[in-house]
Amino acid sequence: MKLINLSKSQKNYYEEFSKWLHDDLNLVNSIILENLKNDSSLIAELSNYIIGAGGKRIRPLLTLAVAKLCGYSGKRHLNLAAVIEFIHTATLLHDDVVDNSNKRRGKKTANYIWGNKSSILVGDFLLSKAFRILVDDGSLKCIDIISKVSEKISFGEVKQLVSIGNLSLSEPEYLDIIDCKTAKLFSAACQLSGEISEISEGEKKALSDFGTYLGISYQIIDDTLDYFSNEKSSGKEIGNDFQERKMTLPLILTFKRSNNKEKNYLDFLINKKKINKDDLSWIVEKMTKYNVEEDCLQKAKHFSLMAKDSIGLFNLNDDKEKILGLVDFLVHRET
Amino acid sequence: MKLINLSKSQKNYYEEFSKWLHDDLNLVNSIILENLKNDSSLIAELSNYIIGAGGKRIRPLLTLAVAKLCGYSGKRHLNLAAVIEFIHTATLLHDDVVDNSNKRRGKKTANYIWGNKSSILVGDFLLSKAFRILVDDGSLKCIDIISKVSEKISFGEVKQLVSIGNLSLSEPEYLDIIDCKTAKLFSAACQLSGEISEISEGEKKALSDFGTYLGISYQIIDDTLDYFSNEKSSGKEIGNDFQERKMTLPLILTFKRSNNKEKNYLDFLINKKKINKDDLSWIVEKMTKYNVEEDCLQKAKHFSLMAKDSIGLFNLNDDKEKILGLVDFLVHRET
Repeated sequence: MKLINLSKSQKNYYEEFSKWLHDDLNLVNSIILENLKNDSSLIAELSNYIIGAGGKRIRPLLTLAVAKLCGYSGKRHLNLAAVIEFIHTATLLHDDVVDNSNKRRGKKTANYIWGNKSSILVGDFLLSKAFRILVDDGSLKCIDIISKVSEKISFGEVKQLVSIGNLSLSEPEYLDIIDCKTAKLFSAACQLSGEISEISEGEKKALSDFGTYLGISYQIIDDTLDYFSNEKSSGKEIGNDFQERKMTLPLILTFKRSNNKEKNYLDFLINKKKINKDDLSWIVEKMTKYNVEEDCLQKAKHFSLMAKDSIGLFNLNDDKEKILGLVDFLVHRET
Repeated sequence: MKLINLSKSQKNYYEEFSKWLHDDLNLVNSIILENLKNDSSLIAELSNYIIGAGGKRIRPLLTLAVAKLCGYSGKRHLNLAAVIEFIHTATLLHDDVVDNSNKRRGKKTANYIWGNKSSILVGDFLLSKAFRILVDDGSLKCIDIISKVSEKISFGEVKQLVSIGNLSLSEPEYLDIIDCKTAKLFSAACQLSGEISEISEGEKKALSDFGTYLGISYQIIDDTLDYFSNEKSSGKEIGNDFQERKMTLPLILTFKRSNNKEKNYLDFLINKKKINKDDLSWIVEKMTKYNVEEDCLQKAKHFSLMAKDSIGLFNLNDDKEKILGLVDFLVHRET
């Protein structure tokens, strides 16, 4: 991405951030593995494959980081981080079926290897498992947070499905969709650690907002990378969203800014069965013409700034600085 | 079905049973509709379609009936019955995608009309909604029951998926699968009403067993009807399970009892892409030769008797008689 000039310190940032939470994350991994031990080898294999497939583990890391920010000293945040990862993984499994995806993060998707049926059922299993862990934890408030977010996610996915191929989708409608399908889980990841800590209601609300804005920023970057990432370094093919006729911010802005001739051609392309490299080049060229990449990045930054300011009432210390650094890292990431 | 000679009183039984719970069921329907009001018309339309598609509503009716048996006098059982129907509907939606079904109860399936993607996502939505209602109800114990059953159901579905086309599946393995995928939800439907009533731990356990055995009996009948129901009166095509290569009790027994030549032919048929009427006639003929229908019915009766004896410690009164009548009705049903 042109605009993204990662400084060395930024590149090293994520490594440092993960190191900070390394021990906790290892414990979360053990909890995840423990909960996948099961007399169905399909469930164990498939979930281990997808959970072990890499990825940045941003969501459970958020739960762990916020627990530190709140000075929480118990062990419950480890289980709650596992819950967040289970919900996220269940969503990925169902998403990949809904999107007919063959690849995620450069690896074959579970539905490609084991079939859609397995992905649907193991997704259901992981979702139930998340609630099982929550019941053992025993907090109705935490169950409330997760049942709400789980409803929001499927609601957001339905809205996204209904908007497929609808070139006239507005920016606010898009923001509403990503708020539901992505941001609310970031928010829940933060809320859970707030809930088990001794902090004020105002601080809890702040954590909820922080997660929401960070999630919106994260998804905008994700959607921008889908057109502008470096395929070699990311292992991700570009143009997937267009092929799936998904109305993401770069496409929404491009369509709004296009002249009639371009609008008609976009309309033709989005209804084409299979787009080719030339089609994609044409689209990216129009995006460049209309400054779409820069504007998307700007919008992501706007929300990441809102995220950072949301937690203004927490004292600035080492923990908070690491979290603020994460926000910057995520908005500047290349994959 | 040859063996089933429904007496007039049995035919009228279900009507009478529903009448007994008519008012409560209407209130449950209102709760269901209220919870489906939503700013996504797809969610509302699709869930109304499937929930309104008829069916016997056995599971929520069980919750309502058991509340009466326990002398429960509040309103919570109505919400809990809605929860049970939501979980059941979510399962149906995902099942129909997994099974590639076009028809259920003589009507087009939701996935046939709205597509697999919608069915997956709306199923997720309904599952989350069930947990939302439970959180509002506020009982950790009830959430525990539902999170456990939800895990069991997906676990059972995965086991069933893995056993597809495996002619040597054993009867105990089959019983284990239907225990997970069907019986545990019947059990949960009964347990919930027990949980909110003032009854002993022994009585709670009895209700749990009652639901489990009734569910096993119910599923055996369901699987038997798949080969032996009257298509005209049931609106259900026969032979679906074989076409889907599903290892149900009638097929398991037939394979076990077949001679080598028949075994080989069954093996050929189950690997055939599309079976025709003659294939199905051949299968049903072998089932008749080996007394499979009668034996399946006998096994279903065995479990329905266990169900009835499970609740032996509840005093026999009008309410209990109605419930015992339901057990008999279900084992003698034709659809």
